[in-house]
Amino acid sequence: MSDPQLTYRDPVAVLGLGPMGRALAATLISAGVPTTVWNRTPDRAEALVARGATAAPTVTGAVRAATLVITCLRNPAAVDSVLAGHDDWAGRTVVDVTTSRPDEARRLSDWADGHRVHLVKGAILTPTPTIGTPAAITLWCGDRPAFDAALPALATFGGTPAHLGADPGAAAAYDMALLDLFGTAVSGLTHAFALASAEGIDPRSFARYAAGIAPMLGEMTTRFADQLTEERFPGDLSTVASAHSGITHVIETADTHGIDSAVLRAARSVIARAVTAGHGEDGLARLARFLTPVRSG
Amino acid sequence: MSDPQLTYRDPVAVLGLGPMGRALAATLISAGVPTTVWNRTPDRAEALVARGATAAPTVTGAVRAATLVITCLRNPAAVDSVLAGHDDWAGRTVVDVTTSRPDEARRLSDWADGHRVHLVKGAILTPTPTIGTPAAITLWCGDRPAFDAALPALATFGGTPAHLGADPGAAAAYDMALLDLFGTAVSGLTHAFALASAEGIDPRSFARYAAGIAPMLGEMTTRFADQLTEERFPGDLSTVASAHSGITHVIETADTHGIDSAVLRAARSVIARAVTAGHGEDGLARLARFLTPVRSG
Repeated sequence: MSDPQLTYRDPVAVLGLGPMGRALAATLISAGVPTTVWNRTPDRAEALVARGATAAPTVTGAVRAATLVITCLRNPAAVDSVLAGHDDWAGRTVVDVTTSRPDEARRLSDWADGHRVHLVKGAILTPTPTIGTPAAITLWCGDRPAFDAALPALATFGGTPAHLGADPGAAAAYDMALLDLFGTAVSGLTHAFALASAEGIDPRSFARYAAGIAPMLGEMTTRFADQLTEERFPGDLSTVASAHSGITHVIETADTHGIDSAVLRAARSVIARAVTAGHGEDGLARLARFLTPVRSG
Repeated sequence: MSDPQLTYRDPVAVLGLGPMGRALAATLISAGVPTTVWNRTPDRAEALVARGATAAPTVTGAVRAATLVITCLRNPAAVDSVLAGHDDWAGRTVVDVTTSRPDEARRLSDWADGHRVHLVKGAILTPTPTIGTPAAITLWCGDRPAFDAALPALATFGGTPAHLGADPGAAAAYDMALLDLFGTAVSGLTHAFALASAEGIDPRSFARYAAGIAPMLGEMTTRFADQLTEERFPGDLSTVASAHSGITHVIETADTHGIDSAVLRAARSVIARAVTAGHGEDGLARLARFLTPVRSG
């Protein structure tokens, strides 16, 4: 399916030329795909035109030039607004890679159904420099035949494109959960550097030890998935009660330096709920059960 | 220095036989070190005595039997209380591995100075099953000659024991900053599993993609250390502004499912401070500068 030898010769339009849209268009052009680009402020297209793209002055002009339309915009509201700039969409495939919530992706699918559009929804998980390289991670969902037909074009973006199923919200759902983990981990990393710095530890010395946390996170990701699947939460490696004690030490240390401890306090509240419910001697994966009022327990 | 061929033949006492204290004592016994153990509730010593330890009925009995005294207790207050159970400490080395804040470790060092004790302070970063294996990570600080003399005993605990310097708070400072990162990452991981589950994604399917976040965290740890050292925060991979937008999507998605978003909201407040200060186009390492009121900017 994802044969790198395949080439895509049908015309593609890219609507939205922010950093990611430009990276996608540049990759298509490099792969020899006939590419039309459009952006609300047209000067963004100049460098792409110099590389072989055609600039369309209007959304309608871009859509008429293409069978496959890729939208990469600031937010779902911008997608709605741009799509409203053209009337006759029947039979086209729209591939939307705009970051959105699952419910927004499903709403876009309703629009597609109403306009006889084949909708493929994508989530691009890695930053623009990865586009066109094996390091790119892209997730796709929605109309499967349309995805298969577009795959030679989408595969130029790099990595191994995965189709998660027909639910148009699936890619966004993965994207949100992955962003959740990523964003919280970044928060913890920057907080740890600040705490280390307040204790007189320089960033590179701290990083030598902190780099050991990343493989622990990888191991926990797999182990927690098994435990949540099997509803078994052994406390042999670390327990909810020890996490409560440990995070309390960290909060107190942050407080002695006047470092914002709101994230840690919010995390401790979840841990405290699990302790109060009698799960202090369970393993840490149990905490995933204490994040919704209805599921607690 | 850390020659695994070295053996330690001086008598050692282990005070405190919780899971970690028992693991340390068992490792010493296996290495042929003459080991006396004490615990407030003596039945904890039974299995160790069966393996060759001597059980002391009192703290004084244990301390008199040893030149090197390892304390592994519930908290620093318990350490104070146990140390007060003996009078004549002069000339002994105390190795305290009780989890504590840096300021508590420094207070213990004052006690040691007043009792002519050589204090080595340790932090054991990995759970009990790692003790005695290469996977153990231990950090040490305080009295360097005493550490060097004790090293053949401490090396039996596994890993590569590192001495961080004479500051008795150094190991605890690293411990706190590492626990900060670890605890926040666990919070993010369990929250991501809960969010994925609410979106109908089973834990193992989610883990296949989430496992990719761990190497990203490792790469960021090194890169952020370089950027914080050099005070350069390029936004080429991801920006503070995009993190604000991304985390807002995640919060909204969590809210639609009634999932607790307090950790994410607290993290977003830090990001918002950086945006407000004009650093929206900077890279994420800049966030480490927005955690203390005095350092903001």
